[in-house]
Amino acid sequence: MDNSYGTLFRIELFGASHAPEVGVIVSGCPAGLEVSAQDFKEDMARRRPGGELATPRKESDEVETREGVEGGKTTGKQIRLAIKNTDVRSKDYDEFKLTPRPGHADYTALKKYGPEADLRGGGIFSGRMTAPIVAAGVIAKKILAKEKITVRAKLIQVGKTKTKMKEEIEKARSEGDSVGGLVECVAEGLPAGIGEPFFDSVESVLSHVVFSIPGVKGVEFGSGFKCVEMKGSEHNDAFVVEGGKVKTRTNNAGGVLGGITDGMPLLFRVAFKPTSSIATVQDTVDLENLKSAKLEIKGRHDPCIALRAVPVVEAAAACALADLFLQARKVLE
Amino acid sequence: MDNSYGTLFRIELFGASHAPEVGVIVSGCPAGLEVSAQDFKEDMARRRPGGELATPRKESDEVETREGVEGGKTTGKQIRLAIKNTDVRSKDYDEFKLTPRPGHADYTALKKYGPEADLRGGGIFSGRMTAPIVAAGVIAKKILAKEKITVRAKLIQVGKTKTKMKEEIEKARSEGDSVGGLVECVAEGLPAGIGEPFFDSVESVLSHVVFSIPGVKGVEFGSGFKCVEMKGSEHNDAFVVEGGKVKTRTNNAGGVLGGITDGMPLLFRVAFKPTSSIATVQDTVDLENLKSAKLEIKGRHDPCIALRAVPVVEAAAACALADLFLQARKVLE
Amino acid sequence: MDNSYGTLFRIELFGASHAPEVGVIVSGCPAGLEVSAQDFKEDMARRRPGGELATPRKESDEVETREGVEGGKTTGKQIRLAIKNTDVRSKDYDEFKLTPRPGHADYTALKKYGPEADLRGGGIFSGRMTAPIVAAGVIAKKILAKEKITVRAKLIQVGKTKTKMKEEIEKARSEGDSVGGLVECVAEGLPAGIGEPFFDSVESVLSHVVFSIPGVKGVEFGSGFKCVEMKGSEHNDAFVVEGGKVKTRTNNAGGVLGGITDGMPLLFRVAFKPTSSIATVQDTVDLENLKSAKLEIKGRHDPCIALRAVPVVEAAAACALADLFLQARKVLE
Amino acid sequence: MDNSYGTLFRIELFGASHAPEVGVIVSGCPAGLEVSAQDFKEDMARRRPGGELATPRKESDEVETREGVEGGKTTGKQIRLAIKNTDVRSKDYDEFKLTPRPGHADYTALKKYGPEADLRGGGIFSGRMTAPIVAAGVIAKKILAKEKITVRAKLIQVGKTKTKMKEEIEKARSEGDSVGGLVECVAEGLPAGIGEPFFDSVESVLSHVVFSIPGVKGVEFGSGFKCVEMKGSEHNDAFVVEGGKVKTRTNNAGGVLGGITDGMPLLFRVAFKPTSSIATVQDTVDLENLKSAKLEIKGRHDPCIALRAVPVVEAAAACALADLFLQARKVLE
Repeated sequence: MDNSYGTLFRIELFGASHAPEVGVIVSGCPAGLEVSAQDFKEDMARRRPGGELATPRKESDEVETREGVEGGKTTGKQIRLAIKNTDVRSKDYDEFKLTPRPGHADYTALKKYGPEADLRGGGIFSGRMTAPIVAAGVIAKKILAKEKITVRAKLIQVGKTKTKMKEEIEKARSEGDSVGGLVECVAEGLPAGIGEPFFDSVESVLSHVVFSIPGVKGVEFGSGFKCVEMKGSEHNDAFVVEGGKVKTRTNNAGGVLGGITDGMPLLFRVAFKPTSSIATVQDTVDLENLKSAKLEIKGRHDPCIALRAVPVVEAAAACALADLFLQARKVLE
Repeated sequence: MDNSYGTLFRIELFGASHAPEVGVIVSGCPAGLEVSAQDFKEDMARRRPGGELATPRKESDEVETREGVEGGKTTGKQIRLAIKNTDVRSKDYDEFKLTPRPGHADYTALKKYGPEADLRGGGIFSGRMTAPIVAAGVIAKKILAKEKITVRAKLIQVGKTKTKMKEEIEKARSEGDSVGGLVECVAEGLPAGIGEPFFDSVESVLSHVVFSIPGVKGVEFGSGFKCVEMKGSEHNDAFVVEGGKVKTRTNNAGGVLGGITDGMPLLFRVAFKPTSSIATVQDTVDLENLKSAKLEIKGRHDPCIALRAVPVVEAAAACALADLFLQARKVLE
Repeated sequence: MDNSYGTLFRIELFGASHAPEVGVIVSGCPAGLEVSAQDFKEDMARRRPGGELATPRKESDEVETREGVEGGKTTGKQIRLAIKNTDVRSKDYDEFKLTPRPGHADYTALKKYGPEADLRGGGIFSGRMTAPIVAAGVIAKKILAKEKITVRAKLIQVGKTKTKMKEEIEKARSEGDSVGGLVECVAEGLPAGIGEPFFDSVESVLSHVVFSIPGVKGVEFGSGFKCVEMKGSEHNDAFVVEGGKVKTRTNNAGGVLGGITDGMPLLFRVAFKPTSSIATVQDTVDLENLKSAKLEIKGRHDPCIALRAVPVVEAAAACALADLFLQARKVLE
Repeated sequence: MDNSYGTLFRIELFGASHAPEVGVIVSGCPAGLEVSAQDFKEDMARRRPGGELATPRKESDEVETREGVEGGKTTGKQIRLAIKNTDVRSKDYDEFKLTPRPGHADYTALKKYGPEADLRGGGIFSGRMTAPIVAAGVIAKKILAKEKITVRAKLIQVGKTKTKMKEEIEKARSEGDSVGGLVECVAEGLPAGIGEPFFDSVESVLSHVVFSIPGVKGVEFGSGFKCVEMKGSEHNDAFVVEGGKVKTRTNNAGGVLGGITDGMPLLFRVAFKPTSSIATVQDTVDLENLKSAKLEIKGRHDPCIALRAVPVVEAAAACALADLFLQARKVLE
């Protein structure tokens, strides 16, 4: 079911990048949570071009609450959030039906939806659809905050660089190229016991929503792919008592054992590919004549999608965890 | 919804490792597919202790078809497959309620299900539950085979070794230790156009089921985590015409663009942690007195779960792809 | 999952009667169906106050297609339809928090959502939410029309009257009262073989969505409640050959045997209670002081909701049948 | 999703009437509920041929708990219940592929599953599949009982008779015929506030599962179909204060307003058609030669399925209410 996600806390995206707006319907949020327009501003700003360092432009990516919040509080009913598209690109995407862009969904959309497929702004595949995910995440984080659970993502690597990442991004831009990035996300304060065995393990539910974010090529928890080279005696996280609480000495598990949270910080990393739209002339095919062709993509593009994806990963994780938390409460109490 | 997975092709696991049997109910398989007891033997053998090289023991892991196959053909109704547990361990798991095993779900099961949680054989968290997944995968692969789609997984790395992997496993065993492993899975013959945007992207649906397999710490598609260090000009797969067909020169995408298959081989890799049960004495806690404790796990254990997980990854992928394929047909035709 | 319904053809309602708009997101509609603004006009007019006989007021209940239709054709992606609320009532609903209206959801909404529940226009319980169902039904009927399947509902009884029903309605209105009604719905052209055993029988899926329509107290198929008084020898529909086709002589089954369509017209009836809002002073309670109170409901109200519910029943049935049809195709072909 | 039902409390049926067993997997039951073999006996006995008055035969319809109950208590994991088929009929159902039985699913099964459809014992359409529903209902009723909620169904009419119903049934039997029946079900103790608007109204969720029971032709709540002939002034249930509690003077609503429980007894009725298998020779068609044919059904059959359906309706309602109750708790508290 393409555009919806979740069981008790559920989101359904709507809109498109070339339409007047994008948005999300959030179902299952309990009544009485305080929500204001201000609450969305910070996360939406982190996702905007330029990210956190950029000057906040008041007029753009403002989240309008259509229903579900009255007198500053959630009503317990569906919440509908909408974000206007102020920068609707009038560009002609028709050439991409003939000569599909490498790394984009032009070719697969044509295969799925036929020759009349709408490729403008990437359609539903567009990164623009991550804006309502960020908005939904604000609601999800409020549910979690009531339980003192926090979720925070950050960019930890760009190309081969783990320190001067902005410079690496600028370098890619100046070369008319793009570069990949690694995002790490940590949720703290989760009680032990969240997650459903077997198919709704914490990892299953989280990876499902995170792999929906455009550009993600890998997801790993705790030790992640490094575990392949490890011995059991190294990898096992020994249980210890600390301050009267059960913890683990290390956190190779990433906070999940048997699909269920163990009370340690939940930790995962997400690999983002380099932006597919680059300034360089690229090889593609002329689909009509089935022969080689060249393609040059115009316009400005983020040289590193991972940078703007940080709040998206965080929001997606918050939505998944709010859902698992609400599912778990019936058992926990 | 813990133990079930899928939309049109759906599986629900049942049983437990310490019960008389484990099994799976498969819903949504079309009528008329030929299925025999023999069909299950090869994949079940690959999952058994020792794996493909071991002497096939006729008596064990035989898949019984309870309903849904009549006269050697699927009836179009639910198929129920059961596998007897011949090796029901009578071992006492009660000690793990007091001193939980590092890396296992003992502690999280206690937190989720309370002090009467059943930890025997790992309960529902047990690797034994992967046997019915392999059985369901046999049915899924038959659906795919009709469309000339194949799915094949293999072990490609153990510890730091990519060649003499069995030796590496034997070495870990001889040291009373265990070692991680990397499994690669490839699906060939998938038409372009399979997968649903946004939240039911091919990667979302596949990672969901693969992360359900015990011991998985990471999943990556195509270039995977390597994409972080790549430039867009390297990572973009140029479209080319080959033999009158549209292909891509490289396959960093792993066969998926915008969440939808592009007709290239679907390729993903799965990182398995080293087996948590090791012969070494480990640090844990005494949950009753909240103090440090030592634990020694008895019995024989696979030193590398990745080895036996190969057919499980393959089966899980087949189930996910059969489901996406059945969903896509309504649009494709 | 409150506001969404369906598996392959899925609808999710949004908006509220007192908000600027109501609408529906339709997922799973195949690409290439022709849809124009004109297509919605007839059904929307049937649902408006006054119904089919009323002067069509161009300006009201116009269905706007936000996404999912390009160049007059469905794109295969989500379709979003919105209908402006031109008659947003500014009336104060706060009194109903103190003295709930009999027959309305005021009291239950307070119990479910707490003292800050939003009762304006009945909130999500409002009959206004049936407008987007009618709009979604137009899309569903187009899918069915491609297969020469038609769905048509009509009012067959008001009070005790089966002929001069409008007079009966006017009579109730003139008395400051309201009256119940019976709606019959027939789907013709459905092939035999649609419907899923066991829990997704045609009757299960249809009754589910029909009982969501405000005011429905009963749903019956074919012989319906009359079957209680019948003998098997009367009730069984004998199979006959007519024009080279298998039919049944009678249709007590209502077109469904064992939860699956038998190729005869699918026939069901829906009982609608009399409108709860009446001009008479009614007994209620003062919830604050827990004592008896009197309530007089102001404003104009339809004296017979069944009249306007006719296209809603038809649309709901069309949505359910389109979903079952898409699910069945995978098996039928 | 044919054989499964529910969101948080979920059941999946397995087995077939001609197979060694039938059963159900129950997911979502909280840990710690006491369950014994004895608990199932009464309800299973009510469903057996002869019903409550019959001599309890110890050996038949015994419910075996395969997993999910340990030491007499639910574990919080999946519960698997199985019931052996001691009376597997060896009868030849092949003739029904040529000459389908009126009122049965022979013809529709052939249309759905093709010429190799398995019609034995009605296959999945069989009344035998209601045995595991009764077993699942025992678990559901335990969840409800903890909250002092009871569910009870009874037979209230057979043919035109509301008093000497057994005689009416015997009369039909002696005539080689069958007769319809009406079952009424009441749930008491439900708090106000259960049920989800819009599509998961109490009536929607209940009618969905009740219409899955073989032979049901109608479902009505409260006033039911009588509401058609009523005025609003008669139908509206006035709120009153009784013993310090808010109640309604009448219960035409059947305990549900706006899809949500109002605290009054939940009340609905279910119409069951007369048994389709009757001793009389019936008209059918020869499907091969497309011409008229006669059919005589051998064997003994219940002359009134409504009688044995009483505990099935009760169990189905309990499953639906347990699910809605678990969903509602997240909001209520």
